[in-house]
Amino acid sequence: MKPQKIDHVCIAVRDLDEARIRWEKILGKGPDDEYVDEPEQIRVARYMVGEVGLELMESTSPDGPVARHLDRHGEGVMVLSLGVESTAAAVDELTAEGFPFVPAPETGEVLRPFRGGRFAFVHPKAVNGVLLELIDDGTGD
Amino acid sequence: MKPQKIDHVCIAVRDLDEARIRWEKILGKGPDDEYVDEPEQIRVARYMVGEVGLELMESTSPDGPVARHLDRHGEGVMVLSLGVESTAAAVDELTAEGFPFVPAPETGEVLRPFRGGRFAFVHPKAVNGVLLELIDDGTGD
Repeated sequence: MKPQKIDHVCIAVRDLDEARIRWEKILGKGPDDEYVDEPEQIRVARYMVGEVGLELMESTSPDGPVARHLDRHGEGVMVLSLGVESTAAAVDELTAEGFPFVPAPETGEVLRPFRGGRFAFVHPKAVNGVLLELIDDGTGD
Repeated sequence: MKPQKIDHVCIAVRDLDEARIRWEKILGKGPDDEYVDEPEQIRVARYMVGEVGLELMESTSPDGPVARHLDRHGEGVMVLSLGVESTAAAVDELTAEGFPFVPAPETGEVLRPFRGGRFAFVHPKAVNGVLLELIDDGTGD
């Protein structure tokens, strides 16, 4: 595999509206995208910085994955996401190399759907504490 | 200000040689750059992923900033760096907006030199726990 780019970086925040005020002064603009991802229990503001999406991410529930991350680690960078041609192929290749993946709590599946593509998380214990995502746009399978 | 791109993302690791083995399987290549930054007390392997440098970073001393970060937070993403036209101008603009910066321990200066350019760190307390770097290549001042 060969990731084509860093697709996005997610920053876990406690209060998205308050975080937006700070980051928009630094980024010099409002969000390029805003969405709620119900399976992941997150509300997101995304800002394109060059080819990378910088995402501010708030939990929509007190016990979602972002809420639990905030309880354990506090605010900060939570996810680093690499854009790949095919998430399924990348998961197969890295699984064969011994990398563990994090199954989705609801489905137990490693591959998770998002807007026509799929993503998966390499377990942080295998990649130096980083919650490393692989994501495709659904055109490469 | 308007950052042009994410310049690099730094991952703090305890053992660079061991981390390289894992990450090079994921990135599908060896480093595009390797260097030691003595003032920062770090040894770095940098991999270009699209336009962004993904850096694995090990401390060269037991009490350098990366060693202290590892003691407090463990391994993981430590720095998010935004490429700007002029670090000095960005620092002036954000200081006027009330953002605090982290002075370099050795010099007490906010602006730090690197390869003809300069960089500076916004204090994590002002940006949701992110150690946010601004960096230029020295051509914009």
